[in-house]
Amino acid sequence: MLDKQFDAQIQHRIDQKTKPLGALGALENVAFQLAQIQSNRTGKLAPSISIDAPSVIVFAGDHGIANQGVSIAPSSVTQQMVLNFLAGGAAINCFCRTNHLAFSVVDCGMEAAVESDSQDLIVSRVAASTHDFSVQAAMSMEHVAQGLSSGSEIVTRKVEAGCELLIFGEMGIGNTSSASALLSSIAHVPVEQSVGFGTGITLQQLSRKRDLVQLGIERCADKSVMEVLSEVGGHEIVHMVGAFISAAEHKIPVLVDGFIVSVAALVATKMVPETRDYMIFSHRSDEGAHKLVLERMQARPLLDLSLRLGEGTGAALAYPLLACAVEFYNHMASFESAGVTV
Amino acid sequence: MLDKQFDAQIQHRIDQKTKPLGALGALENVAFQLAQIQSNRTGKLAPSISIDAPSVIVFAGDHGIANQGVSIAPSSVTQQMVLNFLAGGAAINCFCRTNHLAFSVVDCGMEAAVESDSQDLIVSRVAASTHDFSVQAAMSMEHVAQGLSSGSEIVTRKVEAGCELLIFGEMGIGNTSSASALLSSIAHVPVEQSVGFGTGITLQQLSRKRDLVQLGIERCADKSVMEVLSEVGGHEIVHMVGAFISAAEHKIPVLVDGFIVSVAALVATKMVPETRDYMIFSHRSDEGAHKLVLERMQARPLLDLSLRLGEGTGAALAYPLLACAVEFYNHMASFESAGVTV
Repeated sequence: MLDKQFDAQIQHRIDQKTKPLGALGALENVAFQLAQIQSNRTGKLAPSISIDAPSVIVFAGDHGIANQGVSIAPSSVTQQMVLNFLAGGAAINCFCRTNHLAFSVVDCGMEAAVESDSQDLIVSRVAASTHDFSVQAAMSMEHVAQGLSSGSEIVTRKVEAGCELLIFGEMGIGNTSSASALLSSIAHVPVEQSVGFGTGITLQQLSRKRDLVQLGIERCADKSVMEVLSEVGGHEIVHMVGAFISAAEHKIPVLVDGFIVSVAALVATKMVPETRDYMIFSHRSDEGAHKLVLERMQARPLLDLSLRLGEGTGAALAYPLLACAVEFYNHMASFESAGVTV
Repeated sequence: MLDKQFDAQIQHRIDQKTKPLGALGALENVAFQLAQIQSNRTGKLAPSISIDAPSVIVFAGDHGIANQGVSIAPSSVTQQMVLNFLAGGAAINCFCRTNHLAFSVVDCGMEAAVESDSQDLIVSRVAASTHDFSVQAAMSMEHVAQGLSSGSEIVTRKVEAGCELLIFGEMGIGNTSSASALLSSIAHVPVEQSVGFGTGITLQQLSRKRDLVQLGIERCADKSVMEVLSEVGGHEIVHMVGAFISAAEHKIPVLVDGFIVSVAALVATKMVPETRDYMIFSHRSDEGAHKLVLERMQARPLLDLSLRLGEGTGAALAYPLLACAVEFYNHMASFESAGVTV
């Protein structure tokens, strides 16, 4: 857990700023958490917060279950969208440009690899897609271990290159099915609540998606978290779990995107509870089960914009709020310095 | 009203972006509204949106009723905070720096003028504070007209200098009392609902604030909007009403801050209904009556961060969402251009 020895001093610093107590609402909570993390990282009260070189990492992977028609699009769209990312044409690219965020996409296990020498592409292919988890385990236990380790290493390299704030997103046709199965298995949420419309399937597809997810869940009873990942996980989700654990080891905050990233975050907290201290939740998505995941982690997200896109878009949109929290913590005048006599 | 002739083409452009239909939620609504405004301004379908030189204008004024102890601070704090703004030390300055927003503060009628040759200060003093509206009219009808005209001219100068997005904020000890009285008088909201805790008064002060506001409201029955402004308005609020009307005349969008700015927006819509088309609501503040004002205008604000500071802070925090909406409208790939086959 985060050392609480700096908490009182951090709160005092926030309370002395030229504003009524608590008047910056949720932004004060963000500043507090970032200052707390930074103080723990440096081992002394942070006189200012630094979130330099903020980096979006989009973890991409494919899902065998997608062939069952549980998504609005076929697996080939994962590859097409990754090429769109590398060309700078996707929503996440737009938000990274506007908000000055570095961008990488990781092939964690797409059905078809992409041919590209872009600096933005990280190749970490564990396999070509997962197996269809409604029929068999999505991946072997070895592949779970490999994905966790690879996700961890990707974060370590970013941190060693100077990144002080991580932003995780994902891309993978079929991955809401995997996330729903993980949520049901790990947090005992019935499939009627964990499975939703994803990016926009029909009512008939929803019913089928629930039945298929249920088949995977049934194999997960009484299994360990790593075994559950093997049964119903995805390569991009396993990478993210490893990435969350690594971020906490490096004491680096992570801005969490929507439903699928939040499920990876929940899985990480089940494996290493300390990871929770480093998570900042960016938004509540339109996927109904996201609310349940957030509740399980006592998380109050910053935005609620009815997004349902993934790619890290909600997190990238929330990032300027963190930048503003840092600026007010670092540079806003105190009552004393400004001569304000409230 | 805004000409709707471009609506279908704007929606088609948004729907062809590489994302599921509607997946960017509220951000799509913002892009739509900005494109609609821009198309109306230029008289042809906007191929791209431009919100160059976005400018925060904080309207400051004092209120005679503040001497009755309805606020957490005396009127002298208005001047101290304006000096803090000019020194760059306030929350709004931090957010303007981080989000690259131009900043001005207008003395619309502070109790004590500030001595400063800062470029950021606009002097438009109608009077030294308002009269105590629990006892007499806050200002003369001549002063209402003067404030409306001055607010309008300030916007015209900004627009002529190239500003394509306005962001209004306010500062004025006691101005929640004035805003509550305006809301009650114009929208027939009982004082129990319109008067709240402002930036943090006690329960006892709240009871007194309600009684005093009620005295002002009673003089407003059956009066015109301009007469109501004269009875219970504030110089900064009247300026903002004029500024909203001017923005609509210039077909320039306005990002609206919290409770007090929203009440000025509501007043503007009562005088010139078309003004509503140009308003984008940034956040729902912690002041309970703000929700009522937003409902009256069918407004769904972008943020809900429990802010209760004013100064334009909520609007400045929401601005990057507009910048991201513009970037995705202008530069996000279409299914066709990206070769994505959903």
